[in-house]
Amino acid sequence: MAVGLENLSYLSPVAGIRLSVAEAGICYKDRDDVVIIEACKGTSCAGVFTRNAFCAAPVMIAKKHMSEIESRAFLINSGNANAGTGESGMQAAMICCQSVAGALGLDENQVLPFSTGVIGEPLPVDRIQKAVPELADQLDEDNWNTAAQAIMTTDTQAKGVSLKLDINGHEVNLTGIAKGSGMIRPDMATMLAFIATDAGLDNVLLQDCLEQAVNQSFNRITVDGDTSTNDACMLLATGKSGINLIAGDPGLSVFMQALTDVCMQLAQSIVRDGEGITKFITVEVNGGGSGKECLDVAYTVAHSPLVKTAFFASDPNWGRILAAVGRAGLANLVLEDIKIYLGDVCIVENGGRASTYTEEQGQTVMNQEEITIRIELGRGKATETVWTSDLSYDYVKINAEYRT
Amino acid sequence: MAVGLENLSYLSPVAGIRLSVAEAGICYKDRDDVVIIEACKGTSCAGVFTRNAFCAAPVMIAKKHMSEIESRAFLINSGNANAGTGESGMQAAMICCQSVAGALGLDENQVLPFSTGVIGEPLPVDRIQKAVPELADQLDEDNWNTAAQAIMTTDTQAKGVSLKLDINGHEVNLTGIAKGSGMIRPDMATMLAFIATDAGLDNVLLQDCLEQAVNQSFNRITVDGDTSTNDACMLLATGKSGINLIAGDPGLSVFMQALTDVCMQLAQSIVRDGEGITKFITVEVNGGGSGKECLDVAYTVAHSPLVKTAFFASDPNWGRILAAVGRAGLANLVLEDIKIYLGDVCIVENGGRASTYTEEQGQTVMNQEEITIRIELGRGKATETVWTSDLSYDYVKINAEYRT
Repeated sequence: MAVGLENLSYLSPVAGIRLSVAEAGICYKDRDDVVIIEACKGTSCAGVFTRNAFCAAPVMIAKKHMSEIESRAFLINSGNANAGTGESGMQAAMICCQSVAGALGLDENQVLPFSTGVIGEPLPVDRIQKAVPELADQLDEDNWNTAAQAIMTTDTQAKGVSLKLDINGHEVNLTGIAKGSGMIRPDMATMLAFIATDAGLDNVLLQDCLEQAVNQSFNRITVDGDTSTNDACMLLATGKSGINLIAGDPGLSVFMQALTDVCMQLAQSIVRDGEGITKFITVEVNGGGSGKECLDVAYTVAHSPLVKTAFFASDPNWGRILAAVGRAGLANLVLEDIKIYLGDVCIVENGGRASTYTEEQGQTVMNQEEITIRIELGRGKATETVWTSDLSYDYVKINAEYRT
Repeated sequence: MAVGLENLSYLSPVAGIRLSVAEAGICYKDRDDVVIIEACKGTSCAGVFTRNAFCAAPVMIAKKHMSEIESRAFLINSGNANAGTGESGMQAAMICCQSVAGALGLDENQVLPFSTGVIGEPLPVDRIQKAVPELADQLDEDNWNTAAQAIMTTDTQAKGVSLKLDINGHEVNLTGIAKGSGMIRPDMATMLAFIATDAGLDNVLLQDCLEQAVNQSFNRITVDGDTSTNDACMLLATGKSGINLIAGDPGLSVFMQALTDVCMQLAQSIVRDGEGITKFITVEVNGGGSGKECLDVAYTVAHSPLVKTAFFASDPNWGRILAAVGRAGLANLVLEDIKIYLGDVCIVENGGRASTYTEEQGQTVMNQEEITIRIELGRGKATETVWTSDLSYDYVKINAEYRT
């Protein structure tokens, strides 16, 4: 039921990055469920992690290891989140890091663990350990597509994107993969993204680039307003292209643009594969007094179950959108200044239904799979966009029946 | 599908308050849909209105009239919200007030209008005007039950409560009615409540009492996080019992307690009749550093679609509750200090699933229709409670198919 999500194209290698996958049998049968992403020496690493106060064990360890030493390998498993597992969960994740470190000749804190899957079940450490020799043996630069498959949980499609850019006459590669469907189902999901480039950037600059890009992409998508205990987005920069970027370099803005584009495509692919999705919805808010005002309105609309069910029903229900804007908490909001558009059709102006609006026009837009709501607040110059899905029977079905 | 909602019992008259109902044919067939509530001279009036920035026309007029002069009559219609109707909606509501004022010998600003129903359709003023003579003719103190019926929209049951209290040896009456199912469906709902007492309180004290009571009741319920353009809760005090209450009077706390009780019962009855509800859920948060902390946690849990679908599935999914607590935005939350109970069963402690917990225990609680989630934050003394419903197929069905 994914909306506008095509089969995963070929993902280009990134010099200095090798990947491998294996079948550890953590939760699923007959599919790969563990991945190693190995980075060459000298690679910079940046990461953005869940803001949920209850981080899972792997998130806590990944953050700690990243702060201590050069990160050289990611160990990712699907099928078990190792979350809500207390002290034994921390030990389990550490043992896995040690195994990978041993096999690759690294220190244990050069390995960062990532887990996604069921919450509250003990991580089957022995099964992961058993898979490590094969993982170490199979490392190859040309394994991004299989890795994208192996990190899936309830995703219906593997998600990834590759871009080649020209920076100062040199080819630079950017490849990323992601998993997640729902933002986020703490049960059996989590948003994970792993991106690599052969451009060279130091850790501080790389972190800054990633945070900016994530802010415009992964932090602008929402399916149900829930965030996971395990969310992470990682970015590796190997420098193997020979291009080194520093602050102020004109090439840096080319890189930033491409990185944002990669993050945006990955983030949108998560919404497009959202649980029970039948509509991909862009909520664009213009004319706010500040970015925060725009986001407050955009998220109130995007999270409203009434708006989301109306989209599921293809019902151009402008009253629900208007009411959501009204309760977004903006001070001194003037109803008469606001215009709301469904696609190009103005549905609200002068405090009520637009005089030019016909139900037929609204219906034509609503019948499409991809719909933009544009809200013109008319009180400033700020603008923000978020992406979301509708709320369908299948969302309830998937989330109500998941554990059974 | 209402949960724990019994057929409406007899509602006692309140001396000084007369009511009448009539069939104006606004939207429904073969049922009453307009109501007048008339208060005797000398009655105090208090009101709490929607915080949605987009008030409907009747809300704007009711607020204005209340501030100008003694309020003597409420005109309520169901079937049309007169919201999103711009200037012509204001005129329509004013014409209706004038009709009622003419029939009852009042000034037009002594009449407050209330509307609930479809958004964005013109109010059929002529049909309401036609019903006014009958309404004026039929006013009677013993009409609370028929009024509770007439203000319903998609409610499956009429809602009301009467209490008799003893204040300083005198009998005092409190009767209230409410409508609403979903908090709130802007399409064809709205939370409206009308309460009256024969105690005497001045306007300022009455407003203070109402705000306190609403804060513990109507402001603590949530079905889907949406609030309407038309919500209102009104309180009339006629003084006909001969009891006059002033600040500092010991009788005042008896009255406050009873008023809070009435508001609580009415508010909970709205949740119990929530759209598609199969479970009535009490979210109790204790040990917060402040009331706000407790409410942030309680609402994050109560609004989480993942938690709500788990309740619909009778799934004791502690991971979803834990993750919702974690993303409530509390600073320096210590996972290990938190305990979460389903009914009397401890499901989370020491950062993970409680060691004593069995899935069977959780399942036993989950199979009940009325469930309490208790969250012990262990960081202070504040406590707050909110009431909510689960998220079912029928919620999506009702809201997706409503206009068709």
